[in-house]
Amino acid sequence: MKKIKIAYVGGGSRGWAWELMSDLALADDICGDVALYDIDFKAAENNAVIGNKIKGRTEAKSDWNYTAHEKIGDALTGADFVIISILPGTFDEMESDVHAPEKYGIYQSVGDTSGPGGIIRALRTIPMFEEIALAVKEYCPKAWVINYTNPMTVCVSALYKAFPEIKAFGCCHEVFSTQKLLASMLEEMKGIKDIERSEIKVNVTGVNHFTWLTSAQYKDIDLIPLYKEYCEKYKDEGIVRKDVDADHWMNNVFRNTHKVKFDLFLRYGIIAAAGDRHLAEFCDKEWYIDNPELVDKWGYALTPVKWRRENLTERLEKSAKLLSGEKEFEIKPSGEEGVDQIRALLGLRDLVTNVNIPNVGQIPNLPLGAVVETNATFRSNELRPVMAGNIPDDIYALISRIVGEQLLVVEAATERDIEKAFKAFIADPLVNLPLDKARELFDEMIENTKKYLVDYDLK
Amino acid sequence: MKKIKIAYVGGGSRGWAWELMSDLALADDICGDVALYDIDFKAAENNAVIGNKIKGRTEAKSDWNYTAHEKIGDALTGADFVIISILPGTFDEMESDVHAPEKYGIYQSVGDTSGPGGIIRALRTIPMFEEIALAVKEYCPKAWVINYTNPMTVCVSALYKAFPEIKAFGCCHEVFSTQKLLASMLEEMKGIKDIERSEIKVNVTGVNHFTWLTSAQYKDIDLIPLYKEYCEKYKDEGIVRKDVDADHWMNNVFRNTHKVKFDLFLRYGIIAAAGDRHLAEFCDKEWYIDNPELVDKWGYALTPVKWRRENLTERLEKSAKLLSGEKEFEIKPSGEEGVDQIRALLGLRDLVTNVNIPNVGQIPNLPLGAVVETNATFRSNELRPVMAGNIPDDIYALISRIVGEQLLVVEAATERDIEKAFKAFIADPLVNLPLDKARELFDEMIENTKKYLVDYDLK
Amino acid sequence: MKKIKIAYVGGGSRGWAWELMSDLALADDICGDVALYDIDFKAAENNAVIGNKIKGRTEAKSDWNYTAHEKIGDALTGADFVIISILPGTFDEMESDVHAPEKYGIYQSVGDTSGPGGIIRALRTIPMFEEIALAVKEYCPKAWVINYTNPMTVCVSALYKAFPEIKAFGCCHEVFSTQKLLASMLEEMKGIKDIERSEIKVNVTGVNHFTWLTSAQYKDIDLIPLYKEYCEKYKDEGIVRKDVDADHWMNNVFRNTHKVKFDLFLRYGIIAAAGDRHLAEFCDKEWYIDNPELVDKWGYALTPVKWRRENLTERLEKSAKLLSGEKEFEIKPSGEEGVDQIRALLGLRDLVTNVNIPNVGQIPNLPLGAVVETNATFRSNELRPVMAGNIPDDIYALISRIVGEQLLVVEAATERDIEKAFKAFIADPLVNLPLDKARELFDEMIENTKKYLVDYDLK
Amino acid sequence: MKKIKIAYVGGGSRGWAWELMSDLALADDICGDVALYDIDFKAAENNAVIGNKIKGRTEAKSDWNYTAHEKIGDALTGADFVIISILPGTFDEMESDVHAPEKYGIYQSVGDTSGPGGIIRALRTIPMFEEIALAVKEYCPKAWVINYTNPMTVCVSALYKAFPEIKAFGCCHEVFSTQKLLASMLEEMKGIKDIERSEIKVNVTGVNHFTWLTSAQYKDIDLIPLYKEYCEKYKDEGIVRKDVDADHWMNNVFRNTHKVKFDLFLRYGIIAAAGDRHLAEFCDKEWYIDNPELVDKWGYALTPVKWRRENLTERLEKSAKLLSGEKEFEIKPSGEEGVDQIRALLGLRDLVTNVNIPNVGQIPNLPLGAVVETNATFRSNELRPVMAGNIPDDIYALISRIVGEQLLVVEAATERDIEKAFKAFIADPLVNLPLDKARELFDEMIENTKKYLVDYDLK
Repeated sequence: MKKIKIAYVGGGSRGWAWELMSDLALADDICGDVALYDIDFKAAENNAVIGNKIKGRTEAKSDWNYTAHEKIGDALTGADFVIISILPGTFDEMESDVHAPEKYGIYQSVGDTSGPGGIIRALRTIPMFEEIALAVKEYCPKAWVINYTNPMTVCVSALYKAFPEIKAFGCCHEVFSTQKLLASMLEEMKGIKDIERSEIKVNVTGVNHFTWLTSAQYKDIDLIPLYKEYCEKYKDEGIVRKDVDADHWMNNVFRNTHKVKFDLFLRYGIIAAAGDRHLAEFCDKEWYIDNPELVDKWGYALTPVKWRRENLTERLEKSAKLLSGEKEFEIKPSGEEGVDQIRALLGLRDLVTNVNIPNVGQIPNLPLGAVVETNATFRSNELRPVMAGNIPDDIYALISRIVGEQLLVVEAATERDIEKAFKAFIADPLVNLPLDKARELFDEMIENTKKYLVDYDLK
Repeated sequence: MKKIKIAYVGGGSRGWAWELMSDLALADDICGDVALYDIDFKAAENNAVIGNKIKGRTEAKSDWNYTAHEKIGDALTGADFVIISILPGTFDEMESDVHAPEKYGIYQSVGDTSGPGGIIRALRTIPMFEEIALAVKEYCPKAWVINYTNPMTVCVSALYKAFPEIKAFGCCHEVFSTQKLLASMLEEMKGIKDIERSEIKVNVTGVNHFTWLTSAQYKDIDLIPLYKEYCEKYKDEGIVRKDVDADHWMNNVFRNTHKVKFDLFLRYGIIAAAGDRHLAEFCDKEWYIDNPELVDKWGYALTPVKWRRENLTERLEKSAKLLSGEKEFEIKPSGEEGVDQIRALLGLRDLVTNVNIPNVGQIPNLPLGAVVETNATFRSNELRPVMAGNIPDDIYALISRIVGEQLLVVEAATERDIEKAFKAFIADPLVNLPLDKARELFDEMIENTKKYLVDYDLK
Repeated sequence: MKKIKIAYVGGGSRGWAWELMSDLALADDICGDVALYDIDFKAAENNAVIGNKIKGRTEAKSDWNYTAHEKIGDALTGADFVIISILPGTFDEMESDVHAPEKYGIYQSVGDTSGPGGIIRALRTIPMFEEIALAVKEYCPKAWVINYTNPMTVCVSALYKAFPEIKAFGCCHEVFSTQKLLASMLEEMKGIKDIERSEIKVNVTGVNHFTWLTSAQYKDIDLIPLYKEYCEKYKDEGIVRKDVDADHWMNNVFRNTHKVKFDLFLRYGIIAAAGDRHLAEFCDKEWYIDNPELVDKWGYALTPVKWRRENLTERLEKSAKLLSGEKEFEIKPSGEEGVDQIRALLGLRDLVTNVNIPNVGQIPNLPLGAVVETNATFRSNELRPVMAGNIPDDIYALISRIVGEQLLVVEAATERDIEKAFKAFIADPLVNLPLDKARELFDEMIENTKKYLVDYDLK
Repeated sequence: MKKIKIAYVGGGSRGWAWELMSDLALADDICGDVALYDIDFKAAENNAVIGNKIKGRTEAKSDWNYTAHEKIGDALTGADFVIISILPGTFDEMESDVHAPEKYGIYQSVGDTSGPGGIIRALRTIPMFEEIALAVKEYCPKAWVINYTNPMTVCVSALYKAFPEIKAFGCCHEVFSTQKLLASMLEEMKGIKDIERSEIKVNVTGVNHFTWLTSAQYKDIDLIPLYKEYCEKYKDEGIVRKDVDADHWMNNVFRNTHKVKFDLFLRYGIIAAAGDRHLAEFCDKEWYIDNPELVDKWGYALTPVKWRRENLTERLEKSAKLLSGEKEFEIKPSGEEGVDQIRALLGLRDLVTNVNIPNVGQIPNLPLGAVVETNATFRSNELRPVMAGNIPDDIYALISRIVGEQLLVVEAATERDIEKAFKAFIADPLVNLPLDKARELFDEMIENTKKYLVDYDLK
């Protein structure tokens, strides 16, 4: 059993951190230490207690020792792997990100990646990522760094800008969901059961949350013609999950009936591989997200921050119960790939999967250095992108403009340049406002998040 | 004196053709034949008569023999140079291009390059350019081909797609106007008089009509800081031409007070180098062209097709008078560069100027093969692009999406694929309609131009 | 069990074909037909008989039906996979390839890839590969094509030149041997036993037989510093195989003590990953292969064609015995990867391994289109190169000149241009002759192989 | 008249400096100061006196004030242009560079660019260029820097490595000589007299002194077919200069009958554009430079350092006479382009000519960042390379290996890494020695130049 040290930045998290604990416990070839760092030290401490309770349980295949740290340097020192999942700011800032634009007629289903919300969120997150990158440089420059935080693309960019030799990559499960959708399509249309999502082989391209599959294959079956049929079949009704009752479903704040995804395929012939809530935010505002009625028509939901607040309360309650022992920590595979990536980087298995890293040529017709999402090989201490090829002409206009917007966001934040940020703001597909109105909204959103923009010249 | 043959496709033209006649007459080191071809043969014949009347006039420094031809092959055979300036379709089709979108709230100032009008125009023009390219291949494969027809970018693309070895380039005077503006700025701000536009040295990048200058210099004066002052000074009022009375000016259908250009500079720090009527069409609809009031506020005009019809009537009258001798043909420099380019390609002078040709790396962060506008060296029988460098990140989003749209337009037209054309249509910044409305408009516009879409599968 | 059809061009082979039969028999998830085509039809027939005898044997995990065909089209029709392993010409031509240069002081250890022999061999092989590519285009354009024939790089280039849409790649086991060497190093130096070669993870770059590893890793052990020690330890004596007695070994025509490989590492810090017999042929003549004494000093052997003739006699005898039943066909893993690649392309497993395919950017500082050897992912019906990165500056001069030579060889052969072939000839590192002597040798070698150069203008 | 300041590093030079003085005096649109810096301060002082004597002479069209400086910073402060022409080391070191290899059978015609001599020279020159670049950064970071020192390519690389924002380029007249040769060919074959060299339009590619023309044109005449005839005509006898008597000529240490150049054209179809003494050093040793007899056969000369010593004595005498007034400084055009480049960069004229600058894509199939020689546009304060296109496959092997060698030389020198320098040494086409002999020679040459390798770890 290989002994390693993992540092977790944002280690007080009540989502990703717990999933990691679960996956680590289920790994039978690695063990070691997990050092939790969080600006909310108490949360990290609680998670350390929760994590350490797992030790010795029969379902656990490996032992992990959890510690909480007040200083990031203490957590990072000696780390082989660093995981980052933080909430940049509070739900108050997110409230502004997501809902402030509504009075200007701009609705956002997620608001943490793209759109006005994603941009403002980036402005406060990137300085934090610079700090983390510099800490990695100081305390564990050889460690592999895995980011789960949004906005993914620009966060990973920020890490590389601050410490170009960093061995960092960003992970996201949106492509996995599309693989699962394709698996369920195969079951429905071909009667093939129990297909693992990883058996659906795809060529991934684009940027995080606006990711596309230029090929999809199961064994020797080309899934593209099949998916065309599937899209035709469900384009009107969408796919309603059968495991939740319809009423509940229709009110679900994460509702996603894949109608946007199907429409994009029928339009472009390439599979958009993210949830509809994400996809809609990258397209022309008028297409899918112009107003709540249109969102409803396309069968997905706008997730309100109110829900996130309520959900946090539930998580806090759950945390307290786990801590007190009232509730036992549930050990089950999370579906995330972080632990498998760690194992592959340790040489314990091979893995080809999608990640977010700077473009070194894997997508020749996008700018070098821009962070993109493609497949990569994970093998003993080496991560190398697979050539995804050019973005097809059909979707080049859609994607390149987003890449351009993201390049600007990263520059704006690393240069602490508010005017540059506004250039990114008005480049966004959702911001189709007159220039003066756009500025008004921008200024308001900046004001709402200014507590986290200390280095910027806000005049 | 070097004797050459020029073939003119669209030789019945009552604008470009006359300017060429004038410039040729003023050249003192070349002479020869000009073969006029036009689908309106009578117009070509008339122009031949008008052209031949120039011979022997004292102002003429060289003799040119004009002939009209009914077959394109006859005109092209033996040609050293081919000039293309055609009107694709009639003003009836253009009426639809420009004005049909208005009832959907989409206004266009020109409508021949980008926007819904530019796209539909491209669909009927590209097949014509394929035919021309194939005729060049058959009759004069070594000839240099100069295109003046819009939509410039996609027309030049079409020539190269149909005959990859073609020696073609596209010319446009929009950058020249910006050079003149910079010269007049220097006069106003620095008191330097009589600057030739060609003395303003600029690094050109982007695509035709959405062209940008990343540097501008006069002798050892960097014009960028000066232009910043100039933009600040005139951003509110714009620059009103003093040679026309104010009332007339404000009603002028080509009105252009540079306020859009100034705003773009103040926003991006890079000089947009085309008339405001063009620039506005490439930006987000809401910025400058959302409605006639906004257009008015930005100090430029929407040119109605009605004006073009009236103007044609005037030109026809003028043609009749030139033909009958009632009016004498006026010989004066047109300000266009075609004849200088011809002389440079014959080795009679050197020339570095901006042209539209496929990207072979002169703009590394745009797709190879896409037609772009940059400087190029014209020297004895060789045209080579100058490295323009990467599109600056500030405007990469704005430009790359247009390039993507244009790639789609060219593919749609060469493949006669109406569905692909719709993809380009909805990628356009002016088309911010709900998808169903966009389709409605598209179908209507296609219907209006279908006479020229004979090979397309219009179902 | 997945049923497939494999076509084998060169199916009368008594080496690769038998290894394939063995590997196929050992596969438990595929079965089907193998259509053998060979210009020596009798040889193909014999192999069909030998192959069909395997059916029903207990060691065989799958059934394969072997047929022999007189026409290549019959073999290819319906094929899912095509394997090519042919001998271009006879040993008479090879005699000239390898030994004719000796009287000019040029010695070759293999003479089938690079050096004067490799170039002349290419001239007769490439036209054959064009024919094969065109037959694939006609009879099974969607089939995957696996080449084992040398000269590997230029053969694969020829396939793509003749049929650009071909799904072809070239395979070679030289990198495998280096992985095994690294495994045995680990056993010796770290006491780790039973390491599978595929557990040694390497980043492959360069061209076939002059392939380099810029990283090598076993689990979390970086093998580069270890290999440095190993090279220092064995640089003088080399590694003598213990399984053959020393005397025999020193006379072995395939002798390879790795001293060249070790010297290259100590010199460049990058692992050369092919047998010394191959590596020496790509370096400056004076380094390792200037004369038989130097070859001996470096501990490897020049393989004479005489040995190949004798070996063929042995193989023919073995074939006769297998045919008559006097000897039973031995079923054991060959160590080649072809069958695993087939399975991976059918989606039955994942595979990342090294292959020879055109450069689409996986090595950014080598010309696009040149065939290079890097890792690639094999997944359901898709082969994609992994970004190998730039050739390190240390070895860029060594490799780029070889790539240049190979580009010329391919052009010379596809254009049937003998003068261009001579340009390649004098670019070769082993040809350090005065130009007139080089021409003399070239002409002699061309004369010796002219039976196979029917389309060339030999004047 | 534009007033400027030029700083001259190596301002005590008795060759380039005098030519500059002459060209400056003949310029009628610029004037100003020339600050001479030299490690031989006395030489700089003498040149200042000589230069100041020009003032007021009737042939002088502009006035220049010359000053000598003991500190480089004083010379550079306020400079608009910096010129570098230094002798790195003394003729003692050059004696070793050029002649030490002879006892190993390696002859060099120049020995200052490529070959063993060029590499050793680079090792002592590059640290000096780093110093100069850092001084430019400190004292005049916006100045344009023109280098004339050899080895050109690696000197320019060193400037950019030390100060990436430097506005530097390297100039060389070798291409000019080829243009003149083409002009004299036109006179001989077509009877066209008085052609200016700049009227011969060429597309330049490759690296300095191994520069090639992929096209050559005079007005509308393609010179390639003509040059083929010319090469055929003179390939045996070469071209002997008629202005010197034959005997003298054959003994001339700079003899160059173009036979190498003609042979390369007949072989590759591309015009090699440097003197034969340079070209021969870049090709395989056996081709043109294997021994003095072969050199003689190819009609050119090996320039001995003895000649340079004698020539220096003559120059010193001339300097003394100019200083004392015994001899008057001769004002006549030098044929160099430095002053025209300065004027173009000041916006006083346009210029397209060949320069040495880092590859930013002007030659797409050579590594980015490597210094290459192509055309570039010189316009107001801007120097931009013209797209030269890919190195043709015919000569890619020849050139890419040299580029690789030069990349290593620059790294070796900037890292002060003697082992890396040896990698470059054995990559050189002239060094075809056994590895141990190569090392022996290398060590001897290093020993001979070690006075200038103070920072290197020579062990």
